[in-house]
Amino acid sequence: MTSAGNAVEPFDAVDVIRTKRDRQLLSDAQIDWVIDAYTRGVVAEEQMSALAMAIFLNGMTRTEIARWTAAMINSGQRMDFSGLGRRTADKHSTGGVGDKITLPLAPLVAVFGVAVPQLSGRGLGHTGGTLDKLESIPGWRASLSNDEIMAQLRDVGAVICAAGTGLAPADKKLYALRDTTATVDCVPLIASSIMSKKIAEGTDSLVLDVKVGSGAFMKSLDSARELARTMVDLGTDAGVNTVALLTDMSTPLGLTAGNALEVRESVEVLAGGGPSDVVELTLALAEEMLTAAGRPEADPAAALADGRAMDVWRAMIRAQGGDPDAPLPVAPHTETVSAERDGVLSRVDALQVGVAAWRLGAGRARSGDPVQATAGVEVHAKPGDRVSKGQPLLTLHTETPERFGRALEALDGAIEIGDASPEVSSIVLERIE
Amino acid sequence: MTSAGNAVEPFDAVDVIRTKRDRQLLSDAQIDWVIDAYTRGVVAEEQMSALAMAIFLNGMTRTEIARWTAAMINSGQRMDFSGLGRRTADKHSTGGVGDKITLPLAPLVAVFGVAVPQLSGRGLGHTGGTLDKLESIPGWRASLSNDEIMAQLRDVGAVICAAGTGLAPADKKLYALRDTTATVDCVPLIASSIMSKKIAEGTDSLVLDVKVGSGAFMKSLDSARELARTMVDLGTDAGVNTVALLTDMSTPLGLTAGNALEVRESVEVLAGGGPSDVVELTLALAEEMLTAAGRPEADPAAALADGRAMDVWRAMIRAQGGDPDAPLPVAPHTETVSAERDGVLSRVDALQVGVAAWRLGAGRARSGDPVQATAGVEVHAKPGDRVSKGQPLLTLHTETPERFGRALEALDGAIEIGDASPEVSSIVLERIE
Repeated sequence: MTSAGNAVEPFDAVDVIRTKRDRQLLSDAQIDWVIDAYTRGVVAEEQMSALAMAIFLNGMTRTEIARWTAAMINSGQRMDFSGLGRRTADKHSTGGVGDKITLPLAPLVAVFGVAVPQLSGRGLGHTGGTLDKLESIPGWRASLSNDEIMAQLRDVGAVICAAGTGLAPADKKLYALRDTTATVDCVPLIASSIMSKKIAEGTDSLVLDVKVGSGAFMKSLDSARELARTMVDLGTDAGVNTVALLTDMSTPLGLTAGNALEVRESVEVLAGGGPSDVVELTLALAEEMLTAAGRPEADPAAALADGRAMDVWRAMIRAQGGDPDAPLPVAPHTETVSAERDGVLSRVDALQVGVAAWRLGAGRARSGDPVQATAGVEVHAKPGDRVSKGQPLLTLHTETPERFGRALEALDGAIEIGDASPEVSSIVLERIE
Repeated sequence: MTSAGNAVEPFDAVDVIRTKRDRQLLSDAQIDWVIDAYTRGVVAEEQMSALAMAIFLNGMTRTEIARWTAAMINSGQRMDFSGLGRRTADKHSTGGVGDKITLPLAPLVAVFGVAVPQLSGRGLGHTGGTLDKLESIPGWRASLSNDEIMAQLRDVGAVICAAGTGLAPADKKLYALRDTTATVDCVPLIASSIMSKKIAEGTDSLVLDVKVGSGAFMKSLDSARELARTMVDLGTDAGVNTVALLTDMSTPLGLTAGNALEVRESVEVLAGGGPSDVVELTLALAEEMLTAAGRPEADPAAALADGRAMDVWRAMIRAQGGDPDAPLPVAPHTETVSAERDGVLSRVDALQVGVAAWRLGAGRARSGDPVQATAGVEVHAKPGDRVSKGQPLLTLHTETPERFGRALEALDGAIEIGDASPEVSSIVLERIE
């Protein structure tokens, strides 16, 4: 024990921090060591926090980010889907309000014989989590063993489940630390965090949905472009066929934000209906995933229309213990926000709707908190729609009506009604490969 | 308990960190809260570490530094010497190699009726600690109660003892944190750390000895000047009569670095002898302290020559249980470094001699480690001295001869012998008030 405790470390954490602090390049060996030693607990939380702040303020080069990402991948296991004998495609969204796209997308792509291993997370703050949404389906379970994941990919073609704790454990520690030390919104750290998990998941191809606007981490097109470019480079360098779409997140996606509410809307899309922006983005991402996986000729719109995607969805939910026919839970309490005047809706702010849904109980303030399956916000009109005074614009749902007050506060000024039609752009703003 | 644990905090640590990270000014209320909450353990070590790195890289204004210092003072007790009915003067050195000046200086100033409450620390790294040096005197104890300090100031006039743990506890925590997170050498944090302790000590006047050169924190005159100016402003703003001398630390001070070795040299100075640079700096600092305490006419050189300073020294050592007549311990092992050629000594590097003394056992790598009373380095010649090949230049002392190898490594290139006399400047480089 003593000799292990006294094992000589090749670097000193203070020297590594000082290197980045003084705007010098971190060497490959320094990066490998600091990530490994942090995972082992030899580099203390307060040392990694100082290093993260130095990275935040002084940046990292493309070479440093690539090595940092590789070191985080090497801190844990890697999944290997090569035994499947099928191409795999994965999608990652940087997180937005009402972003339920994974739910229709995974079964839709699987229709065409491409395996979709979609390892997902839970929500924190105002953006929802895919697992939280699916858990509103009675019986559905998020945790699968690696063997169960492989079996489901073989039998059903798509799986959405919790990422195992063995993938990139260094990222898991660092992500929690960044959250409490104001070092979250920094491109090198965001990009390496996302890509270390995605590369460790072992997919052949990856489509990134980088959100831009009030409801996203990246508020400006420039910063989103930088993040997308960094992640595409990281994926490409690691041998993953990677492409990114920059997509609008100034308005909530679709007409719902909340767990069961979003499942309901996803099922509508799988039934060939649903809001046009959700359908548009689902198809755009499906086309990218299918092209990246060697199936550019596939027609995902047809698979939504003719029920093939719905069939895979039902099989996928059933394989994880869920009942696709069970009614989804409904909130016992609702409150309506109505139009204050006649006119044309010019803005429904994504961040404010997301915060309202969160405060209603759809999200959590701390990792591990429970969420309400039924809480959330329904949006009845979108920018460009003509509205009349008194017409319902939002319905707030919750299991705990004392939450309405703070949710309504969050919505103060979220809706704007004007006289002229606003410019409504396509949801896909840019493509980066 | 629960309600105390849930007490609502007026700020969130993440917001405070983000403020400094984004180069905005910290408000007075934010500074007061973050220091208080850190002392209470509500702001975690990794949060303070991120904030310290943001301060390191983005700086603090004079107003922020003053408030930060005040908040650290308010985190603990303040000493009050007003009951003495005598002026008090204190000295602080930023730390150097062979810097034993406090030992002759405190009794020398006390000769003239000025009380000298010299609360000191232990060494860490290559610079020695005043308490470590005095502890090589048989029987001497460093820890005194506040009542004992007051009594000794009344009876003897001078006291050198450990600073109580009640003074600026926020600084104590932050100092330990900075040491492990590469946030030490930053003017706002150094200045506020030093001045919070010195102002909390409650002295009327303060003389700062800011070291410049290889053996000091501040390697350049510009950075030392900035630190001195910042500290003088902080002291003046807090109502303490403050002045700073910038002094040379490119060469070790005097002819010894090490605990008992430096006590021996200090006693030589008190006996009217000793190396000229130690005498020069002792007198320069004594004159500043006496002037600041309203005794500009006092003649400290006379008090060294006629034994009055030695009398106070003996009383001071005896008051703390020490025997001023007991022989000092001597190292059982020595090793000599000799001149490699004839010539004029042009450089004896302070940092390298300091590191060698540290490695021989005079200092500690971690807070709380023991130190050797007898370990250290004797310097037999100083820059400007003519030397002959084979003449002993350094004697290394230790209780553990296996340390000689690493100590000699530290000295590689520390000594240069040239042909022409180097320019030897006065030890006092500049005065800032």
